[in-house]
Amino acid sequence: MAMTLGEIAVRHGLELAGDPEQPVHGVATLAGATPGTLTFCTGPKYRRLLAATKATAVVLPRELQADCPVAALISPYPYASYARIASMIHALPDVVPGVAPGANVAASAIIAKSAWIGPNAVVGAGVVIGERCSIGPNCVIEEGARLGEDCRLQAGVTICHHVTIGERCVFKPGAVVGSDGFGFAADRDGFVKVPHVGSVRLGNDVEVGANTTIDRGTIDDTVIEDWVKLDNQVQVGHNCRIGAHTMVAGCVGISGSTVIGRHCMLGGAVGIAGHLEIGDGVVVTGYSLVSHSLPGPGTYSSGMPAIETTEWRRAVARLRRLDARARRSRPLRSDKDGGQETES
Amino acid sequence: MAMTLGEIAVRHGLELAGDPEQPVHGVATLAGATPGTLTFCTGPKYRRLLAATKATAVVLPRELQADCPVAALISPYPYASYARIASMIHALPDVVPGVAPGANVAASAIIAKSAWIGPNAVVGAGVVIGERCSIGPNCVIEEGARLGEDCRLQAGVTICHHVTIGERCVFKPGAVVGSDGFGFAADRDGFVKVPHVGSVRLGNDVEVGANTTIDRGTIDDTVIEDWVKLDNQVQVGHNCRIGAHTMVAGCVGISGSTVIGRHCMLGGAVGIAGHLEIGDGVVVTGYSLVSHSLPGPGTYSSGMPAIETTEWRRAVARLRRLDARARRSRPLRSDKDGGQETES
Amino acid sequence: MAMTLGEIAVRHGLELAGDPEQPVHGVATLAGATPGTLTFCTGPKYRRLLAATKATAVVLPRELQADCPVAALISPYPYASYARIASMIHALPDVVPGVAPGANVAASAIIAKSAWIGPNAVVGAGVVIGERCSIGPNCVIEEGARLGEDCRLQAGVTICHHVTIGERCVFKPGAVVGSDGFGFAADRDGFVKVPHVGSVRLGNDVEVGANTTIDRGTIDDTVIEDWVKLDNQVQVGHNCRIGAHTMVAGCVGISGSTVIGRHCMLGGAVGIAGHLEIGDGVVVTGYSLVSHSLPGPGTYSSGMPAIETTEWRRAVARLRRLDARARRSRPLRSDKDGGQETES
Repeated sequence: MAMTLGEIAVRHGLELAGDPEQPVHGVATLAGATPGTLTFCTGPKYRRLLAATKATAVVLPRELQADCPVAALISPYPYASYARIASMIHALPDVVPGVAPGANVAASAIIAKSAWIGPNAVVGAGVVIGERCSIGPNCVIEEGARLGEDCRLQAGVTICHHVTIGERCVFKPGAVVGSDGFGFAADRDGFVKVPHVGSVRLGNDVEVGANTTIDRGTIDDTVIEDWVKLDNQVQVGHNCRIGAHTMVAGCVGISGSTVIGRHCMLGGAVGIAGHLEIGDGVVVTGYSLVSHSLPGPGTYSSGMPAIETTEWRRAVARLRRLDARARRSRPLRSDKDGGQETES
Repeated sequence: MAMTLGEIAVRHGLELAGDPEQPVHGVATLAGATPGTLTFCTGPKYRRLLAATKATAVVLPRELQADCPVAALISPYPYASYARIASMIHALPDVVPGVAPGANVAASAIIAKSAWIGPNAVVGAGVVIGERCSIGPNCVIEEGARLGEDCRLQAGVTICHHVTIGERCVFKPGAVVGSDGFGFAADRDGFVKVPHVGSVRLGNDVEVGANTTIDRGTIDDTVIEDWVKLDNQVQVGHNCRIGAHTMVAGCVGISGSTVIGRHCMLGGAVGIAGHLEIGDGVVVTGYSLVSHSLPGPGTYSSGMPAIETTEWRRAVARLRRLDARARRSRPLRSDKDGGQETES
Repeated sequence: MAMTLGEIAVRHGLELAGDPEQPVHGVATLAGATPGTLTFCTGPKYRRLLAATKATAVVLPRELQADCPVAALISPYPYASYARIASMIHALPDVVPGVAPGANVAASAIIAKSAWIGPNAVVGAGVVIGERCSIGPNCVIEEGARLGEDCRLQAGVTICHHVTIGERCVFKPGAVVGSDGFGFAADRDGFVKVPHVGSVRLGNDVEVGANTTIDRGTIDDTVIEDWVKLDNQVQVGHNCRIGAHTMVAGCVGISGSTVIGRHCMLGGAVGIAGHLEIGDGVVVTGYSLVSHSLPGPGTYSSGMPAIETTEWRRAVARLRRLDARARRSRPLRSDKDGGQETES
């Protein structure tokens, strides 16, 4: 959708340095921009790209205004302002109501008049789907699940039975919400499967990435609070609770019954053990192992960055020798001897 | 399904302290229980919750009986006994035989009369599906695959061609069994794709988690023995064998041609290199890297738990200095000098 | 397809020691081979198996020829030659053109006459599908996507809108190409979703593993160059570029905007941070964390191999003590004191 710079400045409360009548019809990078597009610049390290840009307008902080060869929209948060503007220029099309051919909707399902059910989607008994929901092709929504208004399920999403979902949630292809967790109880005869009579409850504005999986609770529900954003291939175990506004990057695994606070950020491929408590405002950097509860706020890390393999082999060998010596010397060591540790 | 405490005690061989005529119709947690429900208590640390429970009955060990304010079912394995009872109270509904609208079943497929084929499922030529199998919506079973009795495939499961599956196996949404493995052979012209003429064989009572993937063998089959339980987002490479009763937690990756013993337990996100042998009864704790064969039984670990990021940065820097010094001092070091290592 | 040894020798340019009229109809392992099959032997450690093989012919290097009890096909790259031969004996069937029942193809889609659209597949508006493409059951190809000739999509693959794909690409079940990346921009009101107006471009001969996910770009495209092979459960973030002939093993996660060179090899479960540059010819061993750009060519590693858990606990405790001592002693340490580090 084309907009004039004046419209953009007014709608987003930004100061405009330039002609308000100029239209923009798309977005671009600083380097790739052509006339008619809008772009952004976040800091002085892009000054040279800024000076050469062919965009019609650039969203940027005030300190870069003097370097801007074209119209400038001044924002203290240029990337966020850009994102808001881009979301209007490239607005998602409205949902076209209806049930596509090949969709299989149970007679007892209650589908809002303004919702769309895509081709070959399957909607079970007693399902409730809110206004303006979009259920993509080949999605499966099992019996008794409830979706609030304005949810968008892309292709091939599975919502298991009796899961409840708030408003404006987004599900990317292949996401699975509400399958049974991994629960077995041991007795003398081996392992017994624990039935999962809990469900999953998602708040509003939750985003669930492609091929991400969220297990249902064993007795109580797994809970994902408002505004939680889960990237692709995340695994959330049974009985977890993830606090509002927490962001979870790709490939993170969260074991069962762990409670994560609000406004946390978990980097890619972080692994979190079960039955832990992660406080509000905890940041865990990518590829860390969390094996103990972490108080919040705070920033936590583990893992060794990759080095040349020949060096790494030596480091592994050295750590093993350290360990061997530690074991050899332990009988000789006084616990009161604080000065000279066994590994030195 | 409601059951009386007397029925439960008799069926599960448990001693009952309480009125055998009392019915229970559901399960609950100690804290969330209401009259008419059954719950469990595993140890003394829950004694306060036990004292306040509103459940009708609690499954617990004998030493907690005196603390129980309501009917008690005595079990040395209260969680397992609870699981068995809960599986009866919340029994899965029987499979309703038939082929749903939109399902696409090849003429040459042999589907047991008591099996159900869900909406929009696709069943290929020559497939054999056993009695009381339930094939969920949008599943795909490729040509020549064979499923034993009482298998349950949830939504969107893919069983590739000629895979053979035992009885009572469970597949969660998005599981993929039998896609080609990742095999390439190098020659002077680059990489050649290795055809995968093997298949996958699953034993009885195997469980395959949501979005878990199991590759078929290059020549011989990938084999998953009886009672193996795979959690969500597990990857099993081509030609692997996983021994009976082994449990694999979420996000584990097992590289090709590795053989894992019986009764092993692999924690979440464990990574196992290819062509290894893991003995019977091996436990690997979560987020460990297994790069060598491991004799069993035994418990193995690696990985550093996350610490505050500022401390972690120092630790990383220190390990790099250790390495730098080790390299500097190597020329000066006699191999016979066992007393003083280079890193000390 | 049965072939004679003479045909094989001629087609693959291999020297044959044996009767060229002998036919083979399948492949096998050295140990499992039966008459009528072809197998391979890569090195002297398999000499005993070679001596006992019941195969009709073995592909092997010249130095093993004397040990071969049956016909030998001599190759300096026996596994690659085997792979080429096996791909002919077990050739994929030709694609049978047509649109299967239950498939849902938009009127404006352009499907080549020789392509096959499987049961319950969904093809959106304006999609272009090249000659001899095979679109498996339950695949979804969203509007505007374009597939070159000879692509094979197995079951349940999702190709999102406007993704462009070259020729001869293979997609295993559950792969998702082109879903929105994980992009949020912060301002004083919290996080704003960044629209993804870029797409994904795949070159020729790309392979995408089961349940692998590739995110579309925020503005420019995510690019996967020719001959890139991605194993199962790989995650490629938005705006990444992966250079030609690079191979990525299972469970690897590549964060957004990272550029990976040509002819790289990433081992299983490697994690790569965002905005990095990985040079041509870089090898990263499995389970490594890459947090900095890596020049190529070179081989890099990190991670500690699993050891007995009791030893590991001691090692973790010792590293923590090292850190504690380092912090205690820092005030006492002169930066010029190069001889005695704080941790020794």
